Amino acid sequence: MSLLIVIPNRNTQALQEKLSEALPNEVIEVWPDIKEPEQVEFVLAWLPPEGVWQSLPNVKGISSFGAGVDGLLSAALPDVPIARIVDPNLAFDMGQYILGHILAWKLRLLQYRQQQNERRWYPKRAHRAINVGILGYGQLGQEAARQLTLNGFAVSAWSRNEKQAEGINFYYGETGLYQMAEQCDFLVCLLPLTDQTTGILNQRLFSAMPNHSVLINVGRGKHLVEADLLEALHTLQIAHAILDVFHTEPLPEEHPFWQQNNLTITPHVSALTDINTVVKQIAHNYMQVKNSEPMCHCIDAKKGY
Amino acid sequence: MSLLIVIPNRNTQALQEKLSEALPNEVIEVWPDIKEPEQVEFVLAWLPPEGVWQSLPNVKGISSFGAGVDGLLSAALPDVPIARIVDPNLAFDMGQYILGHILAWKLRLLQYRQQQNERRWYPKRAHRAINVGILGYGQLGQEAARQLTLNGFAVSAWSRNEKQAEGINFYYGETGLYQMAEQCDFLVCLLPLTDQTTGILNQRLFSAMPNHSVLINVGRGKHLVEADLLEALHTLQIAHAILDVFHTEPLPEEHPFWQQNNLTITPHVSALTDINTVVKQIAHNYMQVKNSEPMCHCIDAKKGY
Repeated sequence: MSLLIVIPNRNTQALQEKLSEALPNEVIEVWPDIKEPEQVEFVLAWLPPEGVWQSLPNVKGISSFGAGVDGLLSAALPDVPIARIVDPNLAFDMGQYILGHILAWKLRLLQYRQQQNERRWYPKRAHRAINVGILGYGQLGQEAARQLTLNGFAVSAWSRNEKQAEGINFYYGETGLYQMAEQCDFLVCLLPLTDQTTGILNQRLFSAMPNHSVLINVGRGKHLVEADLLEALHTLQIAHAILDVFHTEPLPEEHPFWQQNNLTITPHVSALTDINTVVKQIAHNYMQVKNSEPMCHCIDAKKGY
Repeated sequence: MSLLIVIPNRNTQALQEKLSEALPNEVIEVWPDIKEPEQVEFVLAWLPPEGVWQSLPNVKGISSFGAGVDGLLSAALPDVPIARIVDPNLAFDMGQYILGHILAWKLRLLQYRQQQNERRWYPKRAHRAINVGILGYGQLGQEAARQLTLNGFAVSAWSRNEKQAEGINFYYGETGLYQMAEQCDFLVCLLPLTDQTTGILNQRLFSAMPNHSVLINVGRGKHLVEADLLEALHTLQIAHAILDVFHTEPLPEEHPFWQQNNLTITPHVSALTDINTVVKQIAHNYMQVKNSEPMCHCIDAKKGY
């Protein structure tokens, strides 16, 4: 039995070394240099080339190299259990990214930086009574809601299934989506990327949002219809957007987002997985597969998360 | 008996109107148009001209128009009780200003804004394990410490008198000041302005701070030796400073702070007193003086806070 790393276009040397330390007696191979494809029973993958699965007849478990599995799911995927990385620090970091950006907006940091450049002294009250609407109330959404309520923000959440939590207003279904959007100062996308959520951040949603409101996308680039957002920002249908994820990453140099003034770009840093946590979970799941035990943090391939 | 407002260089019309509503049967005068100076028994003041007190023979109580009284104390001040404004929202706002700026730094917001201007995609991990040292552990310092610990920051505090609070490291005296400064990633000044604290943010303190550390001054402008800070920022003795208060406000257009790149200027907005809270407390204290009862929130004029 061996473990195969299939993560194209990324330097996986440190990852491979740490996995070797955690699994000293196991064979670890790195795609595309596979010496014994029939030995591969466990695959750690992110954006694997479609063809790779056909050459691996004995895969028994797959782990995503991230919190999501949208970089993994495809028709060619073998019908075996699929795990994802669950890093509690990751949810905390994501929540703090959201909290930090909302506070920066509330405190007008960008505005004062601009005034500083112009040597202008123009005090204004901070924004008050901010309602934050969260799209998605899984592990990440819950942690963001926890941090926001802790710091005095009013939180609503839109979720697929009925949820309950003290102090949070829940919305469901398509009607609920627009109802929530209408009363939000901030709308934060923390959804998994599925067929149902692809392109959910679109013109129709922006037109439901108040003109002073701000969109934060820390989900996936494909949740957003980029042209619709550009139009909404250009016409001031919404006031600002903060994006950490994009259709193409790195964001191409010629992309119109770069020069859109009421748009904040961060380079996919809202929650960077800690390699030590990743290695620990992958080593654990590898041993589970080896011992014919179930993996931890498995996803439902039909639901897509 | 009448109430006199002495707040030069500021439009006090809204304040006067709200005080008239709160005290409908009382006479409210606004300096310098004083019709009956001998009737004035209660004065609401901020930066009053020295001479004003000589013309008011019957003052029985004075209220500062702010959380501090450093804009009030002078040799000419009559020896009567002095109150200050205690606004619980003010402490919350101040704490959130500090939290927001520290989070913005942790999340590298300015750095990414700069990269965005240059169309540059360069992800970096957020800063980790941030120690915040607070100078002053009164009402404001305690609230800042509460918010920071709540959000996962390690907090130390430097205080005049011995204090205890779970999870906070306390330092005392001159030695304690430099000991705390040495181990801080952020140093936040929330001290009252007294003879002992004037100029406490100086070259000696900056040389004790780590090179990567950041200074936040939300106390008073005169806590800081401005020339020392410019030198420390210029030579990268400390990494950055965030200032909300200055020797002269508004900060003069020709001041070198404006163009110092590793300095963030906000125009004295970290905690703006809510006029409704102010009016309520002043009306209450006015009635206390009228009924020969003690005012609320009195300060110790000898200690200066």
